[in-house]
Amino acid sequence: RLYRIASIPGDGIGTETTDAAVQVLEKLAEVSGKFAFEWDHVDWNSKTYREIGSYIPPGGIERLKKSDAIFFGACGWPDIPDHISLWSLILPLRHRLNQYVNVRPTRILRGTSSPLSSCVADPSALDWVIVRENSEGEYAGQGGTTHAGTPLAVGTEVAIFTRPGIERVMRFAFDTAAGRPRKLLTMVTKSNAQRHGMVLWDAVYDEVRAEYPDVAADRMLVDAMTCRMVLRPRSLDTIVATNLHADILSDLAAALAGSIGIAPSSNLDPTRENPSMFEPIHGSAPDIAGKGVANPVGAFWSAAEMVRWLGQGEAADRLMEAVENAAAKGARTKDLGGQSGTKEVTDAVCKELEGM
Amino acid sequence: RLYRIASIPGDGIGTETTDAAVQVLEKLAEVSGKFAFEWDHVDWNSKTYREIGSYIPPGGIERLKKSDAIFFGACGWPDIPDHISLWSLILPLRHRLNQYVNVRPTRILRGTSSPLSSCVADPSALDWVIVRENSEGEYAGQGGTTHAGTPLAVGTEVAIFTRPGIERVMRFAFDTAAGRPRKLLTMVTKSNAQRHGMVLWDAVYDEVRAEYPDVAADRMLVDAMTCRMVLRPRSLDTIVATNLHADILSDLAAALAGSIGIAPSSNLDPTRENPSMFEPIHGSAPDIAGKGVANPVGAFWSAAEMVRWLGQGEAADRLMEAVENAAAKGARTKDLGGQSGTKEVTDAVCKELEGM
Ligand SMILES: CC(C)[C@H](C(=O)O)[C@@H](O)C(=O)O
Ligand SMILES: CC(C)[C@H](C(=O)O)[C@@H](O)C(=O)O
Repeated sequence: RLYRIASIPGDGIGTETTDAAVQVLEKLAEVSGKFAFEWDHVDWNSKTYREIGSYIPPGGIERLKKSDAIFFGACGWPDIPDHISLWSLILPLRHRLNQYVNVRPTRILRGTSSPLSSCVADPSALDWVIVRENSEGEYAGQGGTTHAGTPLAVGTEVAIFTRPGIERVMRFAFDTAAGRPRKLLTMVTKSNAQRHGMVLWDAVYDEVRAEYPDVAADRMLVDAMTCRMVLRPRSLDTIVATNLHADILSDLAAALAGSIGIAPSSNLDPTRENPSMFEPIHGSAPDIAGKGVANPVGAFWSAAEMVRWLGQGEAADRLMEAVENAAAKGARTKDLGGQSGTKEVTDAVCKELEGM
Repeated sequence: RLYRIASIPGDGIGTETTDAAVQVLEKLAEVSGKFAFEWDHVDWNSKTYREIGSYIPPGGIERLKKSDAIFFGACGWPDIPDHISLWSLILPLRHRLNQYVNVRPTRILRGTSSPLSSCVADPSALDWVIVRENSEGEYAGQGGTTHAGTPLAVGTEVAIFTRPGIERVMRFAFDTAAGRPRKLLTMVTKSNAQRHGMVLWDAVYDEVRAEYPDVAADRMLVDAMTCRMVLRPRSLDTIVATNLHADILSDLAAALAGSIGIAPSSNLDPTRENPSMFEPIHGSAPDIAGKGVANPVGAFWSAAEMVRWLGQGEAADRLMEAVENAAAKGARTKDLGGQSGTKEVTDAVCKELEGM
């Protein structure tokens, strides 16, 4: 089976971790013998923006639609305001490719450790999947500024929650929970203080919940949820939340599991009409870019999720096994308390794959 | 000096922890010998709402304005939707009394411990003051629902950020940072994804920052901020963020310091034209209400902040000393790993105050 993958390394360490992921994926294909990759190397990044004034050139979305999946590195550079780079690349891709869920698994990989004492004692206590609404809500993009540049300036951010938009991600979350051993879902909003769209989330949750009698579901406010994650990690399994809330909670989850450098994300179009997109949750990290020290594990885990989405579950498990073996044997970057560089970790993972 | 305090115990454990705080404050006044309290016991709560259809009766705000400060317990009960109870009591009070900053100190009290291994090793690593914008932003209250109750329903939440609103809280935060030994401020937004109001926050930050050359200030995105709090607590000191972001970050801070039950908050009108309001950050906790097990430390710490705001800094320090002594000697509720009830902790703190 041949998979056509569009890879968009982007900026900064995105290029380093994407290179590493491509190398590891090639090795995975080789050792599995069941599939191969054909790469479309897409060079949209902040350099392109400086040159042609946009990240995505005309026809860009159509080009991506020809692929089976997209692998994304990171995007943004200090000379371009972040809201411009993100709204010119990653956010339009999520929106235009109908990638309405963003899935973020978090657990404590072998060879890494959690800053929480409770999880040092028992790493299995933290094993979560965060399902993030990825197409609307606080990132709908509406709002504006009145009296800009004057002492009276007023800026608004308009979060838009549509019933179909909520329903589809809610069903996805219940399906995800139903497919996991504990069948546990926690739905997060801030409907006490935000009483319009957030209350609609609660209402849709109540309805969809009735369709899934085997899933044990409960509700939390986003502020209280951070406490539960820190103090009672084992009480959680699948989590569903809005675009902004889940963005915050998933970074927190990654930190509680040890490092943002290991965390993966999948931007999915569950209808499979468009290619889905896989990206580590780390950013372009200008401070460490070009030094060969970026942690490639977030990219590897994202690559594993991509391979799983493409139907190669066994190969995905194999890749994660290799990543964990390598980490357990000491191939760890600085953020995980180790001393290896990107290349050493990548080579160690390839070696594990070969030896399996 | 006689201080007139309006106390609003509210619902659930709010009544228990407020009673405890009143008792401790009376003892503090007695042992200090420099001031006394006159109480206005205000019985607005969910029972009142069920009876008269509102929490705040006509003339209520004027009644509160006669006090030097307000002590608040908690509000909300399961039979009344949270967005109704909160928008009928605590949020209107914050808005109508111009309490535009909410200050949330967090540190690891003696006798309590953090879930973070790094802070178990060194509790001084976590010592933060979170300054929360308390009057607008994501809690401005605007938004609505179109096609309500139909498959096409759309709900919006409109976050409103005004330049004067941002400026005043930003100055307060810089002043707070300037008054602390490390003179360190971290400003939090999500201006990469939210490009209107959040970008205005960033702009105001840049301007106000120029007025405070001695404060070392930096900027974070709210998602990345959660990681920094978990992984590099010592790198933070004073933090300023929007209404919603700081709400989330301050609950996280409380959990990282050990329990939401110890965390205080001050709703301040820095102009002192209106009374400020002091409340533990815990809610009404229907699950444990009436059992005498609620942690009163959040209420005691809030009481200490109130006394400090009233100008009695020495007495405030004394109260915190007593709270920490009592905890260190074992007077701790279950959430802190102890076995004491509300009354035992309260008595222990009073005893400490007497013995000082
Ligand atoms: C890059 C940025 C727009 C993004 C987001 O906030 O969605 C990132 O933080 C993420 O979590 O994927
Ligand atoms: C009670 C509720 C409205 C409140 C808030 O979200 O502001 C609470 O969570 C807090 O943090 O003070």
